[in-house]
Amino acid sequence: MAVGGAEDRQRDRLILRRFIELSGGPQARLLLLTAASGDPAGAWEGYRSVFAELGAQRVEPIDFRTAEEANDPAAVQRILDADGVYISGGDQRRLMSVLWESQAARALHLAFHVRGCCIGGTSAGAAALSRQMLAIGEPTLRPYRDAVSLDIGLGLLASAIIDQHFNERHRLGRLLSALALRPDLLGVGIDEDTALVIERGRSIEVLGNGAVTLVDGRQMRSNVREVDPEEPLTLLDVRVHLLPAGTRYEVVDTDPDTPAPPPALRQALELLVRPGPIRG
Amino acid sequence: MAVGGAEDRQRDRLILRRFIELSGGPQARLLLLTAASGDPAGAWEGYRSVFAELGAQRVEPIDFRTAEEANDPAAVQRILDADGVYISGGDQRRLMSVLWESQAARALHLAFHVRGCCIGGTSAGAAALSRQMLAIGEPTLRPYRDAVSLDIGLGLLASAIIDQHFNERHRLGRLLSALALRPDLLGVGIDEDTALVIERGRSIEVLGNGAVTLVDGRQMRSNVREVDPEEPLTLLDVRVHLLPAGTRYEVVDTDPDTPAPPPALRQALELLVRPGPIRG
Repeated sequence: MAVGGAEDRQRDRLILRRFIELSGGPQARLLLLTAASGDPAGAWEGYRSVFAELGAQRVEPIDFRTAEEANDPAAVQRILDADGVYISGGDQRRLMSVLWESQAARALHLAFHVRGCCIGGTSAGAAALSRQMLAIGEPTLRPYRDAVSLDIGLGLLASAIIDQHFNERHRLGRLLSALALRPDLLGVGIDEDTALVIERGRSIEVLGNGAVTLVDGRQMRSNVREVDPEEPLTLLDVRVHLLPAGTRYEVVDTDPDTPAPPPALRQALELLVRPGPIRG
Repeated sequence: MAVGGAEDRQRDRLILRRFIELSGGPQARLLLLTAASGDPAGAWEGYRSVFAELGAQRVEPIDFRTAEEANDPAAVQRILDADGVYISGGDQRRLMSVLWESQAARALHLAFHVRGCCIGGTSAGAAALSRQMLAIGEPTLRPYRDAVSLDIGLGLLASAIIDQHFNERHRLGRLLSALALRPDLLGVGIDEDTALVIERGRSIEVLGNGAVTLVDGRQMRSNVREVDPEEPLTLLDVRVHLLPAGTRYEVVDTDPDTPAPPPALRQALELLVRPGPIRG
């Protein structure tokens, strides 16, 4: 579950409610992973009572500040035992600098791939779910090569680049800049208070109050290899799909209640639901 | 020549320079049409010295406040004699409420179609060049049916809907809202200090400091007929082409110096360069 940041914690709390449900309900063992945050105690305080009010009875914080902590066997075991891990916001570079090649990251992979643990992430936590991660990038009116830096994320999604606060912060220019560098990937822009739920290999659903913008550059023709790093890019034949909350598509099965996606969207969704390889 | 507003009048003044050149050079008979503006004298003052500095020797303002003025034979004759007409910014509804079905509008058509008069428009003046005109629309993060009102413009371009100040004012949501209503048209988003030069039936060129975003919804699948007017739209398979300043494409001839556009772009350009029928 990739959340675009600023998910509602006061009103219907639809997204967090669904996270608990997908993790197994009130008795699910949930972890709030705060390693992306500069204030892990504050991040935990911000979620603690909300999870409690939504009926989750077994939620604990887990945090890593150092690589050593991220290899601590007791902490790793807690991840391996979890039914759901929710990664709070902050800075995706902070998160990955601690988790990179750690036992905790391997435990997240094992929990996800082997036990079907539900992994959610909001804002920085969403950005880090994919293998290629948008690490830095100022908003830009028009895409150019040096607008973004890519780095390595957790790799739970194989073929997406996720950007968050998408329409609110006008990030299409930066996502297109990233896709110019990696046109083989699918750009996924998630609005605030909006979640993209990916059931691996099977379906996607959009929840909340905004939309998910899929930007497919696989047919794109660009001049990214020919221009200066600050020069505005020519990008031809970018395919865009705008999926507001309420959207649901089956990629594999044909549930008679959900409409079949048109071919261009279906190809994009097949890429989106593809999990990364296990790094166990 | 459709200009996205805020064209440079102080530094290289590339866009206005090109307008003079396309109209025939220093001796061309130029008119600054200020009917979109609430302050026509101010609008004229803002351009007068710039045109003079760029060497244009025969520039005059022309203005219409009422339908009567827009049918005045002397004024109409001035349009028929012009080599270039530049329509200043303001409000496209004001412009069209005066020009609608007027002799002045017919004269613009005759000058353009018969004598090859160069018609330019900036901001509101650009919006009014097409037949379907984006009349009103607040910026919107996500497209919905009632985000925009369409009205009738001058009709010099048959198959486009132009929006201006495009990336600066984050208007993709409103242009997509318009295309949901009219998916047969080509959305044209023009940035500030950027001009799209259309040589009818033949070529396009982008000048200035920004980009032109072409949004082609002809393959799009949308739910615009099924949802409430305020409900966020699902838009699938929108094709986008981003053309920064410096772009030039021939649509008909194959100039060996300019690259051939890829097929999806070529189809969009064929639509873009199509002039409207003469209303003489």
